[in-house]
Parts: sequence; structure tokens; C-alpha cells
Amino acid sequence: MSVQSTKAVVLDHLVDGEVSTKNFRLESKPVPEIQDGQVLVQVVAFSHEPAQRQWIDANTDERRLYTTLIKPGETIRAPIVGRVLASKLPKYPVGTTLAGFHGWAEYAVLSEGEIFAAVPPTADGKVDLHALDVFGLAGNTAYVATAEYGKIKPGSTIVVSGAAGAIGSLVVQLAKKVFGAARVIGIAGGKAKCEWVKTLGADECIDYKSSDWEEKLRAAVPDYADIYFDNVGGPMLDVMLQLVKPNGTIVVIGAISTYNGEPLKISNWPQVIYNRLNIRGFVNLDHPELIAQGQTDFAKWIGEGKIDVDEIQTVVHEKIEDVPKTWLRLFDGSAKGKIISQIAA
Amino acid sequence: MSVQSTKAVVLDHLVDGEVSTKNFRLESKPVPEIQDGQVLVQVVAFSHEPAQRQWIDANTDERRLYTTLIKPGETIRAPIVGRVLASKLPKYPVGTTLAGFHGWAEYAVLSEGEIFAAVPPTADGKVDLHALDVFGLAGNTAYVATAEYGKIKPGSTIVVSGAAGAIGSLVVQLAKKVFGAARVIGIAGGKAKCEWVKTLGADECIDYKSSDWEEKLRAAVPDYADIYFDNVGGPMLDVMLQLVKPNGTIVVIGAISTYNGEPLKISNWPQVIYNRLNIRGFVNLDHPELIAQGQTDFAKWIGEGKIDVDEIQTVVHEKIEDVPKTWLRLFDGSAKGKIISQIAA
Repeated sequence: MSVQSTKAVVLDHLVDGEVSTKNFRLESKPVPEIQDGQVLVQVVAFSHEPAQRQWIDANTDERRLYTTLIKPGETIRAPIVGRVLASKLPKYPVGTTLAGFHGWAEYAVLSEGEIFAAVPPTADGKVDLHALDVFGLAGNTAYVATAEYGKIKPGSTIVVSGAAGAIGSLVVQLAKKVFGAARVIGIAGGKAKCEWVKTLGADECIDYKSSDWEEKLRAAVPDYADIYFDNVGGPMLDVMLQLVKPNGTIVVIGAISTYNGEPLKISNWPQVIYNRLNIRGFVNLDHPELIAQGQTDFAKWIGEGKIDVDEIQTVVHEKIEDVPKTWLRLFDGSAKGKIISQIAA
Repeated sequence: MSVQSTKAVVLDHLVDGEVSTKNFRLESKPVPEIQDGQVLVQVVAFSHEPAQRQWIDANTDERRLYTTLIKPGETIRAPIVGRVLASKLPKYPVGTTLAGFHGWAEYAVLSEGEIFAAVPPTADGKVDLHALDVFGLAGNTAYVATAEYGKIKPGSTIVVSGAAGAIGSLVVQLAKKVFGAARVIGIAGGKAKCEWVKTLGADECIDYKSSDWEEKLRAAVPDYADIYFDNVGGPMLDVMLQLVKPNGTIVVIGAISTYNGEPLKISNWPQVIYNRLNIRGFVNLDHPELIAQGQTDFAKWIGEGKIDVDEIQTVVHEKIEDVPKTWLRLFDGSAKGKIISQIAA
């Protein structure tokens, strides 16, 4: 089978300030014939990643980025799950469902290096989208964060912001149900999300949309926190500088509050000194060996019932042209877990 | 000899916001008779330490401080150099000059635990005030910063803010003349200070009072910096988040720009992630063994001509009642090196 062209969402222009649907446009792109070592794939779904925001930012210093910027006219890159329609790669015959890295298009030609793994169907025969969350970037990141940068000791107190997000909802579970933290405090936006975070194992969840969130957060860690896993930045980070124990660690996983140009206001920076804090950012691509180990460990923990993945994704069924609108939900906090656009069955 | 009372500068009230001379008042305090193991000292000089600001701040969380807050009516604590007038401590007979920890008073009774060391006179028979800079807190801190938290490799590029300050002027010298950094960039306020920083070994010095400081700073590290030693916070820290190499380190020594309640505005926080930064604060009191080693090493390096201490102090000769005004110069950037108030010959 061959496909001549595909609808694709491309970058219209780089973002300078706040991102909107105007930064994207729909185009028809040619689909080349597959060569030896390639497959033609019908894309089933993409996951939406905060990291993509940086790949389209006019102020990104490309020399320092772990990838290249997306140029105007180029398809927006994204992790995908897709179904093989034609194959010159024996490992992935026609009919295989696979996880890989391509972008916002209906059809794609992938080489072996862009393919992560084959994805077996779910028990009821559907496409398993967990390749885009727990077995995708979110899971990889949660694993590297806890395995390498914020090693959780049994009995410790852990705070996680963005606790209802794709990564946060896994970190909460890892902390409480895998690594034996004594107290896990989630921070999330809204009562419903907080209720869910508690079902994941958090002892308490602070709703940052409540007016007294700061008071509640302080009360939740009377003896301070050993590690703060920060997915958000913002005023929560400022308060947490006061609430991490001396020689404690802040793992900077994300800073979603700042990605649209909002500067961070920090009143408590001297606490970094007085409390001898370690603040550490990371990129999980630096740790391929840990990512591989994480896939194995997550499969085991899911099998043992320690990690619950039933509700860690928000799947939006839509047409390719509507994907940018869904992607923007990364920044409004309206979704639970990993946001996924599904464009085919 | 005995002294019945002393003038002392005490805390009037804790600081909430900006500190001023109104937070202090002059009092007469009784001087007790010395007991076994104590000496009576005439205080010659105090060093002024940014850390003191935290000890008098109403917003300090005392449970997390490495010392106690100073209470209203208590003498402001400070490192001192003094001369022994009476002694019941054979190690420090009458006439000894010693370095110790007491406060803003003309006379003081010190126990052995408050005495750091005897201080031999200078070659021309004067009191050696270097006990208050390179052999005091500033030297200790510069040593711990470079020996433990920001280990400088030969050939590396180092940026130091507050480079004309007490700690910065030592870090610049350590980087260039002891640890073999290839490029050392100082940041300081004003042309005269910058010229001085260059005489200490800095390859370049950025005057943050010039309108194009940011552009100049970027141009000064075209291949980015391995370590940023930050004494200041402020907009320089924000820019440096973009200019430290991936997996590079920011050693947070001080944050003088923020101590009077000015919040830090950070636009580049996501760089902590993309550049995998290590940000680390510390308190040198955690490292008594390094401090001891530092004293030995500094003496050696000074002897070898690697560390120049001729101009690393600004000594103000004044009466005790004028000390708070001089102490406030810590925050206006008007002094070079360690600021010392000398109240007796």
C-alpha cells in the first residue's frame, strides 16, 4: 500500500511570548515511498509534551538545546502510536502497532531509529495508548527523576507539584507505593483533581486554586520535605524553598507556569543558601539505560498493582486540524494525566 | 584590669522589609567579671557579614536557621579582632590579639569556644585585620565554595558575581591563580571595581552598572561557563541560567540583591531543565575540616604570591555608634572587599 500525501500540522511561526493556535497551520505534505529499513505508518495518536513548547520558541538558544528547533513549515514533532501499512523493515511487518517519534500528521514514513517499540494490543483488542504515557516520555521522566535525581528513602516526606499531570501522577505513585515514602503531598489545581491524586496514594493534596493553598501547604509539611518534585515553577516553588529540609533536594522536572513567558517571582532565594538546597534539572534523554530499566520496572509494578494507569490519560478523539487546540490544554491545567490526541481508531 | 560596662549596639527591632539604622540602638551593657577559662577583650574591629542580615530578619524561620535570631536588646553578633586585657585562660595571656566571635561592643568577655585563634601582629607591629577577611568568614566561604561545591578544573571558564566583594575577590583569585581556570569573568559594580577585579586575575570584568552589561556578559562567555559563583542573585543570575554549560553548576554563595526584600525575577527558569543545571547553596559551618584546611592553604598561597590580600578590605575607622551605618554599606555596593569597622588602634 502507498499513500501520496498527508494532512500535517506545521509550524507557522516561532513563538515569542504566548503560544496560540496561530503559531500552527494545516498543510498537505507529500509522503515519500518507503525505502529499505522503513515503514509507512497510519498515525493513531500523539501525546502532548510540555517539552514541545521549547522546540518552537523564538527565544530558545538552539546551540544549547538537546534537539533542533522546529522551523516554520516543518511538521510539529511528537511521540506517536501508529499502525504499519507497508513495511520494508522485517522487524515491524504490516499490521504491527508501534510507538515512535514523528509528528502531527495522518501518515508517516519512519526509519528504525525513529521507532521505540512494537505495542501489543490491549486485552480487548484496542490500541494500547500507554505507550504514550507510562511507557512514553512521561514515564521515562518520572523514572529518571526518582531513580537518579531525587532518590526517595523509605520514611521520607515528598511533595509533588503538577500531581495530577502525566509525570506527577506517576511520581506520586512511585513515592508512596514503590519507594515507601511516609508522607506524599500532591499539589494540583481543583478539587476533583486533588481527590484523584489522593486515590493515587497521596496523603494530602493541596488545591492551588484555593485561596489558602499556601497556609495548607505549610501545614501539610510541619517537619518539612526531603524532596520536592517540581513540575510547575510559580509561587509554589517560592514557598517550597522554605519547606524543603536543609540539604534537601528540588528536582526540577518542569516549569509549566513559566513556558508562556510569565517570569518567576522568587522572594525566598536566600533559602537556597540557609537550607543548603540542591536544585537539579535534567533531560531524560541523557539516561537511555535508565529509561530501558524503567520500562521493565513499570511493567512489573503495574503487574503487581503498585502503579495504577487506569486514569492517567486524557484522550481526545479529534481530527488532525484540531490537535493544536488540544495541545494548548497543556498550559491551562484542564486535563488530567497525559493529554493524547487520537485521530484514528 | 576590669571593665564595668561597655557601649554596645543592640537590635532595636527585627527587620521586616528594608533594614535601616533604626533597627539598631546604642546601649550601655554591663561587662561581667571573667571566670576561669575566659578573657576580657578590648574589641579592635568587626567584620561586616551579609549573613548577619538574616539573623535580624522578622521573616527568618528560626527552626531552620543554623543559629538563633538576635533578639531586641541583644548585642549584634559579629566576628571580631580584639586585644586581651585580662585573662583566666592561659592560652591567651594579657596582650594577645585574637580573632573570635562576639559582637558590636567596645569590650567583651569571651570563653574559649568563642575564640578562633591568636593573631600575630603585622610586620610593622599593627593588628592584622586579615583575620576578618581571608582568614575569616569570607575566606572560609570562598574556600568551601571552590573545594566542595564548585570544583574548578584547569582550563575551565568561571564567572563570579560580586567579584569585587570579600568572597568574590578571593574566588576570582582562586579560580585563576590556584586552580588554573582558563577564563575568569568577574561581574562588579562600577569601572574602578572592575579594573581592580582584573588586577586580581580576571580576564574580563563586566560592570553591571553599564547599560549593556547583559550583552557584554553574553559576549564574554561565547562558549558558556562551567561554573557560576553567585554572590548577588538579581538579573545577573537570570542571565547566567542561559550561560552555564549543560550539566554545569551554579554555586549560590550569596544573594545580596535580595536581602532587603526585593524579589528575584527569573525569566529563564526552564533553562535549569534544558541545561541540566546543578544549583547548590551551602553554609560553611557544615565544613569545619575544610575551613581548617583552607586556613593552611591560604597561608601557603599568600606566601607563594598566588593570593593577593593587599586590597581585599575596606577599613572604616569610627566610633561604635557609627557602626550600623557602615554595616549598611554591605547592601549599597559602595565598598571593595571585606568591610571592616575599626573602633580602636
